[in-house]
Amino acid sequence: MRYSNSFPKTKKETPSGAESVNHKLLVRAGFIDQLMSGSWTLLPFGFRVVNKINDIIREELNKTGAQELLMPLLHPKEIWNETGRWTTAQEIMYQLEKDKKEFGLSFTHEEIVVDLIRKHQLSPKDYPVKVYHFSTKFRHELRAKSGILRGREFMMKDLYSAHLTEDDMYKYYHQVIDAYLKIFKRLGLDAIVTEASGGVFTDKNSHEFQVLSEVGEDTIYHCECGKCDFSQNEEIFKGKVGDKCEGCNCKIVASKAIEVGNIFPLGTMYAQKMGAFYTDSDGSKKPIWLASYGIGPTRVLGTLVELFHDDKGIIWPESVSPFDVHLISLNDDQKCDKIYEKLQKEGVEVLYDDRQVGAGEKFADADLIGITHRLVVSQRNGEKIEYKNRCSEKSDLLSLEQVLKKLNHS
Amino acid sequence: MRYSNSFPKTKKETPSGAESVNHKLLVRAGFIDQLMSGSWTLLPFGFRVVNKINDIIREELNKTGAQELLMPLLHPKEIWNETGRWTTAQEIMYQLEKDKKEFGLSFTHEEIVVDLIRKHQLSPKDYPVKVYHFSTKFRHELRAKSGILRGREFMMKDLYSAHLTEDDMYKYYHQVIDAYLKIFKRLGLDAIVTEASGGVFTDKNSHEFQVLSEVGEDTIYHCECGKCDFSQNEEIFKGKVGDKCEGCNCKIVASKAIEVGNIFPLGTMYAQKMGAFYTDSDGSKKPIWLASYGIGPTRVLGTLVELFHDDKGIIWPESVSPFDVHLISLNDDQKCDKIYEKLQKEGVEVLYDDRQVGAGEKFADADLIGITHRLVVSQRNGEKIEYKNRCSEKSDLLSLEQVLKKLNHS
Repeated sequence: MRYSNSFPKTKKETPSGAESVNHKLLVRAGFIDQLMSGSWTLLPFGFRVVNKINDIIREELNKTGAQELLMPLLHPKEIWNETGRWTTAQEIMYQLEKDKKEFGLSFTHEEIVVDLIRKHQLSPKDYPVKVYHFSTKFRHELRAKSGILRGREFMMKDLYSAHLTEDDMYKYYHQVIDAYLKIFKRLGLDAIVTEASGGVFTDKNSHEFQVLSEVGEDTIYHCECGKCDFSQNEEIFKGKVGDKCEGCNCKIVASKAIEVGNIFPLGTMYAQKMGAFYTDSDGSKKPIWLASYGIGPTRVLGTLVELFHDDKGIIWPESVSPFDVHLISLNDDQKCDKIYEKLQKEGVEVLYDDRQVGAGEKFADADLIGITHRLVVSQRNGEKIEYKNRCSEKSDLLSLEQVLKKLNHS
Repeated sequence: MRYSNSFPKTKKETPSGAESVNHKLLVRAGFIDQLMSGSWTLLPFGFRVVNKINDIIREELNKTGAQELLMPLLHPKEIWNETGRWTTAQEIMYQLEKDKKEFGLSFTHEEIVVDLIRKHQLSPKDYPVKVYHFSTKFRHELRAKSGILRGREFMMKDLYSAHLTEDDMYKYYHQVIDAYLKIFKRLGLDAIVTEASGGVFTDKNSHEFQVLSEVGEDTIYHCECGKCDFSQNEEIFKGKVGDKCEGCNCKIVASKAIEVGNIFPLGTMYAQKMGAFYTDSDGSKKPIWLASYGIGPTRVLGTLVELFHDDKGIIWPESVSPFDVHLISLNDDQKCDKIYEKLQKEGVEVLYDDRQVGAGEKFADADLIGITHRLVVSQRNGEKIEYKNRCSEKSDLLSLEQVLKKLNHS
């Protein structure tokens, strides 16, 4: 992509009212734009990062045997009434009437997925069912805040699994915990599996995936040394800071954290209320066991910026960098055009800053946008290309072959 | 994918109330499921086909220099009021109130994209802007009908371009016509570019991409021989059937057709009403020229089924077949497992029917699901694999190498 043709360019001004780092940097670097409170457009660069986040999620979930689908966003009141959530969740749910019918906008999809499964009248051998989608969620949060971390309209990956037995549900539940830990690791995040309450979803405890950060809204109580996996959300933690951890006898500390994922062993409540039964071998009707699993890709986008930035801009983990390479031409467009073509031919994703602006502006924009690898082509360097990693202060003069090797594209 | 693990399986019963072929076959084959009138879940197989449709669209649009992004679905009333469409489009638009604020659900995105562009205060050198997204559209159609062809919630690819001049707008407009024709060709559709009215979008004429089909809602008047490109929608056609075509002197005929795409040269109306101006070199403020371009991937899904089926089921064009291969094991699971693994290793997308059911059921399901290439592994055939194309009656005994060659994976 030639940066001269890209919409939009970076901005010098910090957006008015922005307090959080992700808000400031993502807007200034041209990754997101605010439509209204809690509602954001993913601009082309932001969309690219979210796509890469989604591809990593997709890959790991597919390995667990889950299938991707897409459920609707506008839901009939009747289905939500079956569990009572049309009323109990009405603060958070956008509800509307059209032509004397009432509808709600998806803030989650448990009711819809249970309706889908019960309609298909599966036989026991068709279980478990594991389906997920990336779709829009609408939640009327009283205060939309922290940039893209807490929105009223946002993207969510939600996975649902339906099982014949509690054992089978928990077996898959733990498989998803492992998949989530792999996903967050690939995204460059150290996620701590944390016990929490089930909220509006279930009376069982859920598990959150928490990433330590001062800007997080949650407080978690976890083992100081990290040797054991003790971690509880403050909603359910009964002890106090300094207590000895049951797992490894270390001290328990409190930390601020951002919740990037949340999973719920929902049990049979939804099936009971909605009549989602299967016929067992003895002829009896039994309710299916449901679990649900969420990750917010747009919240992950914001979390990455909160964690990985410096005073010049964003520092993307390589796995989700919007492009592989930020290519800068300094007064040698002809040579740079050729390198741009060669890199593209090798399958490298290149952002090519071909604008007629000064070197200082190009370098500052590269630092702000935060692509992992930066290449500078200038007359001064002859046939060599100046290579710099966004994380490093030091640059090297390399041949094109050496550059491709660094990018793992040789 | 092992079919035994897939949700859902095919159904024997035709869905109640289904009249159109796409409704019957897509539901029976397990590609879509109806949540309510005009609202469908894309089940895993349907989702796969739509993804392939989207990838083809994406590829051709990216070649025109367009960038993908994602705009929100819930819009503030204030922006829609600027063009008056909050009121003029209120029959079709779902509108709601929450906490004393009014919102509308996206039935299109012109207002939102113009708001996005004006906020960025671009300089002339930053034009043209070409951005698109695949997103959900909500339209309160009085009668949702024809299966997935006309829904109230559906997926749309909408592209918007903004230009400094009318000339530049039309230059790109024609580039998109060419891209659309390539897209539909790759999707296996002969689309006829048809002049039509601008509807609620513009007072200028628009262009529709129409595919001839008896189940189409539109009637187009077009040149019988097809040598020239004369084609008009009945809304604007002033002549009668049998008239001589201006282009090539043939007769004009009337045909039923399905509109799979629609493009609008919107002009400066949106910019004028919303204050989207740029500052020209002489210091004067000028409105930007806008055009918009839509394709409905879920409607394309239904159109393909209307056009390509027989009395046994769907016949997908190879470019969007949900899998490359439908692999059937007839009492030789061990050999078939190995072939399944080898095919996957070669990057072939395989639906493997590994169920313990009879040959007749497996063949009938393969015909219903409609994957392009069918492979049968059985003891009778020894090391050979029985190959059949969904379009052909005849099958061949091939080695695995020959199979890979047929699939272009050798």
